[in-house]
Amino acid sequence: MKLTTRLIDIEHRGVLLHSADAREISVRGGDRVEVKNRVTGESISAFVDTTASLIDPGVIGVYRPTQVQIDVLEAAEVEVRAADRPTTLDYIKKKMDGGRLTKDETYAIIKDVVADVLSPSELTAYIISTYINPLDMDEVEYLTRAMVDTGERLHFPSYPIVDKHSIGGVPGNKITLLIVPIVAAAGLKIPKTSSRAITGAGGTADLMEVLAPVEFSAAEVQQMTERVGAVIVWGGATNIAPADDRFITIEYPFKIDARGQMLASVMAKKFAVGANVVAIDIPVGEHTKVPTIEEGRKLAREFIELGERLGMRVECALTYGESLVGHTIGPRLEVREALSVLEGANEPNSLIQKSLSIAGIILEMSGKAAPGEGYRVAGEILESGRAYEKMRQIIEVQGGDPDVKAADILPGQFSYVVKAPGNGYVIELNNRALISIARAAGAPQDAGAGIFIHAKKGTQVEAGEPIFTVYADRQWRLQKALEEGRRLMPIVVEGMLLDRLPGRHWGGGGSYGE
Amino acid sequence: MKLTTRLIDIEHRGVLLHSADAREISVRGGDRVEVKNRVTGESISAFVDTTASLIDPGVIGVYRPTQVQIDVLEAAEVEVRAADRPTTLDYIKKKMDGGRLTKDETYAIIKDVVADVLSPSELTAYIISTYINPLDMDEVEYLTRAMVDTGERLHFPSYPIVDKHSIGGVPGNKITLLIVPIVAAAGLKIPKTSSRAITGAGGTADLMEVLAPVEFSAAEVQQMTERVGAVIVWGGATNIAPADDRFITIEYPFKIDARGQMLASVMAKKFAVGANVVAIDIPVGEHTKVPTIEEGRKLAREFIELGERLGMRVECALTYGESLVGHTIGPRLEVREALSVLEGANEPNSLIQKSLSIAGIILEMSGKAAPGEGYRVAGEILESGRAYEKMRQIIEVQGGDPDVKAADILPGQFSYVVKAPGNGYVIELNNRALISIARAAGAPQDAGAGIFIHAKKGTQVEAGEPIFTVYADRQWRLQKALEEGRRLMPIVVEGMLLDRLPGRHWGGGGSYGE
Repeated sequence: MKLTTRLIDIEHRGVLLHSADAREISVRGGDRVEVKNRVTGESISAFVDTTASLIDPGVIGVYRPTQVQIDVLEAAEVEVRAADRPTTLDYIKKKMDGGRLTKDETYAIIKDVVADVLSPSELTAYIISTYINPLDMDEVEYLTRAMVDTGERLHFPSYPIVDKHSIGGVPGNKITLLIVPIVAAAGLKIPKTSSRAITGAGGTADLMEVLAPVEFSAAEVQQMTERVGAVIVWGGATNIAPADDRFITIEYPFKIDARGQMLASVMAKKFAVGANVVAIDIPVGEHTKVPTIEEGRKLAREFIELGERLGMRVECALTYGESLVGHTIGPRLEVREALSVLEGANEPNSLIQKSLSIAGIILEMSGKAAPGEGYRVAGEILESGRAYEKMRQIIEVQGGDPDVKAADILPGQFSYVVKAPGNGYVIELNNRALISIARAAGAPQDAGAGIFIHAKKGTQVEAGEPIFTVYADRQWRLQKALEEGRRLMPIVVEGMLLDRLPGRHWGGGGSYGE
Repeated sequence: MKLTTRLIDIEHRGVLLHSADAREISVRGGDRVEVKNRVTGESISAFVDTTASLIDPGVIGVYRPTQVQIDVLEAAEVEVRAADRPTTLDYIKKKMDGGRLTKDETYAIIKDVVADVLSPSELTAYIISTYINPLDMDEVEYLTRAMVDTGERLHFPSYPIVDKHSIGGVPGNKITLLIVPIVAAAGLKIPKTSSRAITGAGGTADLMEVLAPVEFSAAEVQQMTERVGAVIVWGGATNIAPADDRFITIEYPFKIDARGQMLASVMAKKFAVGANVVAIDIPVGEHTKVPTIEEGRKLAREFIELGERLGMRVECALTYGESLVGHTIGPRLEVREALSVLEGANEPNSLIQKSLSIAGIILEMSGKAAPGEGYRVAGEILESGRAYEKMRQIIEVQGGDPDVKAADILPGQFSYVVKAPGNGYVIELNNRALISIARAAGAPQDAGAGIFIHAKKGTQVEAGEPIFTVYADRQWRLQKALEEGRRLMPIVVEGMLLDRLPGRHWGGGGSYGE
């Protein structure tokens, strides 16, 4: 059926048909149609909404993301027909029934994922099936290669190209902001693509965005890396392993990380940027994604094996994941902390030590430091100011202000200090609760929102001493964060619960700041 | 945030926010908001689309299904905020991880399903999890009761109330149109709710709609049943066990039938209409949902056990599912065939025998026939014309024309006769392929579309004799059906493929009719 386009400014994948036209081609709301651009000859799949009045028969409303996908203008002619059921649904069904996916089946699924042929429900069925019936290493390799081949790739003229990845689950893990400039200052190339926060209070991309733009094409990432040796960008804008973004959206509400998907997603992104030397930080701890050392070792072996299959050298560091890295959670607070270390501050220890350890592994793997010397060499690069100078170059090449100082980066103007209700030791500090509070305060969208922890686990405090400060860019957000704090009780001082809040006398006399 | 409604005529669950408002309350496209009607005080969950221009800040676009759900008019004031993550996602995650769902968890999930709190993706995660990690009988019982309690119920003053169900998978299974009037003519009450076709070419509700309206409220179903003893209506309109419709939509693309969901869906609908005597037809055969007798017996035991738990008497009939019931597929063709039997025709045998068998079981279970006498008694009721008279009453009470005759019900005006390419026996007749062809011809939406099979499996045919006729209401649909036929090769005559079609010389000289 030939229809005329009407562009509709709704950010939702799909098209709108008059119900008479829908009936004519025998589709109902939620069904899939094939829409062919009669100028380019290209076809896409789209899901149908119907209306009895919003558009006339003969017209097809095209929502925003679909306009881009099919590349049509207002009043263009398109050919629309009921789409066939995608064959990949049978492959997903096979996985559901416990079968193994072949290379061809895996490629077909990932192509449909990237082309948005599958509905969110169908994609969910795939993810959940691979979560319950785990992929074996062959299937993971197929998936990794399919994710690489359905996106863009970088091709550098010389090796090594290095990369790093942190599995996540630890709050305040701002180490990338130190590792990248350290290893780049040693002369290595590291085209780092990062995530935005999904369940956290700030992904590395959210952090870097405080300092410079982070949305670049793959070609731009390559050019910038060739120029200054490193970038820190948001992977989602590059079209590198684009299937990953679709997976994340689906996994998010269930807080699941299907093992095979995770291995493939991480390694596909490294493989696609051309990295041949990769260090992986696996935080281990009760509240992280990897609760025990044994599981950490198993995951490490899987990363290493997958790396071998792909021709990449991989080393993994099992790191302490029970505690916050540094003192801060939330974009501006974390960036301020990391930048101060690059400027020469000699604390926080946890941040500096972890960053030097991972940077050291990369330096040793790539021959920039002798075995056992990586940590020391990384430390020298940091202390010498060469890492700071490199960070300034990275900020500048991405279009930020290289002269920015840690002291310029201020947290949100609304704040509340939670104080110790009595003398004692901080015996419990719940990372997940702190992240929830930071998110309630507006992080990561509100870059000034977050938490500064004055007294970490094991610290001795006296009554009235500050334990942590909550920051927010907006007053109502601060209130929301405090409500969340009251509900979650993130900190315990020597067995005494912080069970009172402003209005309800939370803490031993907390105080608002502005 | 207080917003003013703008009703938008799009058949899609959800609301549309200006992107500035979305940012203000920290939600993004696809996120869930809580919308509170400030007049009624009621709140609902809805999923967000965003726009930069279609509505102004301060306005919330409300799509059609959501208008009904929250019951608002144009320019009403609503309160909108980011919704909390539903706790039920944790229960779904538990099932995903192989856990058992408690009664409370099951009820919470089904309440969220019915209130449309869960997104299609989240609902998919639930269905797939219960498909891969099957529900045990306790979980099935909780699910059944939850499905009953979240919908409407019928309460009849006297027992027995009888019901029947066919598991499906057999084409042309129009037996309900005979069983219901037979058992009602015996003085039993049978408030039959039926489905529309999902993967088939016509559900019982699609068939009955040829004769009378089928969309009624639960109260109307009860009144009509009290008046004439029986109805045949579409269950989807009654709000009886409404969770079932949501499940079906999700299972459809994968053609799965999670065992526990299926048991619960069937029995919830029987329980909710107040039935205490239930006969279940389990067609067994290679291409049905139950491939072997052993599986059929196992399923029968599960239905019987679930019935006992719910205080219902259940008997199951394992029936021959390899072959079409009668000669017809598609709404008008099937209704014509069933009505002709009620009018006194003494064939097709397969249809009459199967209908009398199931009706006989119900008559024996409810004391209307002595043990072993049910089939005979059912046959007498049919032959006496009392079943026909009852069917006229049912048609009339539902608002149809009771004087309609089988001969008045004509199939689609476009047809094509497929003829035998040579002498021989019909050794293969693929039911699934026949259904696909009937659907391609437009069934069930186009009520005249379908197939008449002249020569069933095992029949001897001579070259040029008709094997089947395809009917359609529209010419292009007939062509589509013939293309589907060429692709699927539904019939084999003595090893010779029907591999030629019109244009490609399909059949030994097929002919168009009109």
